[in-house]
Amino acid sequence: MKNVVIVGIGLIGGSFALDLKQKYAALTIYGIDKNEQHLDEAVRLGLIDEKATFEFLDKADLVVMAIPVDATLEILPLILDAISDDTIVFDVGSTKEDICLSVKDHPKRRNFLAAHPIAGTEFSGPSAAVAGLFQNKTNIICEVEETAFKLQEIALTVFKDLGMRIRYMNPKAHDKHIAYVSHLSHISSFMLGKTVIEKEKNERDIFDMAGSGFESTVRLAKSSPAMWTPIFRQNKTNVIETLEEYISNLEHFKNLIKENDFDAVFNEMESTNHIKKILKGIQ
Amino acid sequence: MKNVVIVGIGLIGGSFALDLKQKYAALTIYGIDKNEQHLDEAVRLGLIDEKATFEFLDKADLVVMAIPVDATLEILPLILDAISDDTIVFDVGSTKEDICLSVKDHPKRRNFLAAHPIAGTEFSGPSAAVAGLFQNKTNIICEVEETAFKLQEIALTVFKDLGMRIRYMNPKAHDKHIAYVSHLSHISSFMLGKTVIEKEKNERDIFDMAGSGFESTVRLAKSSPAMWTPIFRQNKTNVIETLEEYISNLEHFKNLIKENDFDAVFNEMESTNHIKKILKGIQ
Repeated sequence: MKNVVIVGIGLIGGSFALDLKQKYAALTIYGIDKNEQHLDEAVRLGLIDEKATFEFLDKADLVVMAIPVDATLEILPLILDAISDDTIVFDVGSTKEDICLSVKDHPKRRNFLAAHPIAGTEFSGPSAAVAGLFQNKTNIICEVEETAFKLQEIALTVFKDLGMRIRYMNPKAHDKHIAYVSHLSHISSFMLGKTVIEKEKNERDIFDMAGSGFESTVRLAKSSPAMWTPIFRQNKTNVIETLEEYISNLEHFKNLIKENDFDAVFNEMESTNHIKKILKGIQ
Repeated sequence: MKNVVIVGIGLIGGSFALDLKQKYAALTIYGIDKNEQHLDEAVRLGLIDEKATFEFLDKADLVVMAIPVDATLEILPLILDAISDDTIVFDVGSTKEDICLSVKDHPKRRNFLAAHPIAGTEFSGPSAAVAGLFQNKTNIICEVEETAFKLQEIALTVFKDLGMRIRYMNPKAHDKHIAYVSHLSHISSFMLGKTVIEKEKNERDIFDMAGSGFESTVRLAKSSPAMWTPIFRQNKTNVIETLEEYISNLEHFKNLIKENDFDAVFNEMESTNHIKKILKGIQ
């Protein structure tokens, strides 16, 4: 592997660039981004060695696509058109079904691996890139059997070298489960932030009363709307289902309080406490 | 100050014990707790020097009450009955209106200071105590003018020595605002945990897919039901109001997705993003 092209040099793309450089000294890392300022910043920060254009893609050994999932739908087929027969392309998007469908019949489908490394922070842009972001993180691979053997191997070696744990799953199952363990958390956090900001808009110093508990539950409300809007669009059906169940649980809890059934309120919380054990496995 | 009695030697009481001992070398710290195992553990961990009973309270200079808010309503008047004229008692409860009302006409009302240090973790019991927990944390004091001058001074000096920032507020306003910035976060977190556990109960390994975002938003679902149930009971009206506004915001967001109004979905998130700036002040 000599030439890597990162398409979208933000938090995730930039973090891949940092780790790849550190693991494989001989690599040259190229960046493509529609945001020229981000590209300049990525060069300045040492994330990429050089800027590139689509014309360069046929010289790439590996292409990492780390752009919002709506842009991936549009750009992925064009990237497959432009690469060589020996190039492996993987994406990192938080939805997988539409993305897999978008290249289902592409003549270079076997050059693509659909991936979702469960890693990130609430920040974005090249300056948010951090070394070691993927260490011990889960990476969900979808439709691995649609990717050519030797290209699977290249991508999987990279994932392993960067410290990821690999899980295989079909795109439909990925999108359904990720709605629960990721997409719903983001909405609950955004709406919690909205509820409190609306209420306290004339009393900003009320946030002096907020502690680390509030900070933890609204952390995700700092996330990028440009990244999350297309995720909710592509995963609409699953996201609506999770929201309906979440709202119904909140309504139920509210009604227990209204009816002074505090034994039931206690039980609701106690039976959720075992999330402790479940979370122990999460880094 | 020579003798301090901690009533309730859990996370908060134990953390007070640790810091008080470290700041004031000459102190002897006594513990009272209905849980004998916790008392033994507190002695073993070096949180308290000795176990005590109510009979000892008239020798106390300072009494810290760190028990669930329903127990505080019951026990606080009995403690005031038992202390000397020169003892200062403060509580640390997450509700303030009912607690202040419960001793409104007590002959020793002036020996009590109503306090709420906004500090803690999702853990509980003596082993959860940590040194320095209150450093740079906000402590809301209610009805300060109801406490005797010289006793105010003792408590405020302790708070200052432990590194807290003091804010004064009336109990009604405290309970209303804390419902938004603390109580609602706990419910949103518990119900998020419940929603995901219910859905994934037959597929426990799905939690492999959960990342730090999920961990952050459900962290508070590890909290103690014995502590939180009486808080929701005492702050029922405010908690129900916050829940209704939160549910209505979630419904609205869901409907925007349903109606494919993704410009509005984007705007909802973008206008909440400035929570970043607000949170900068929170430790």
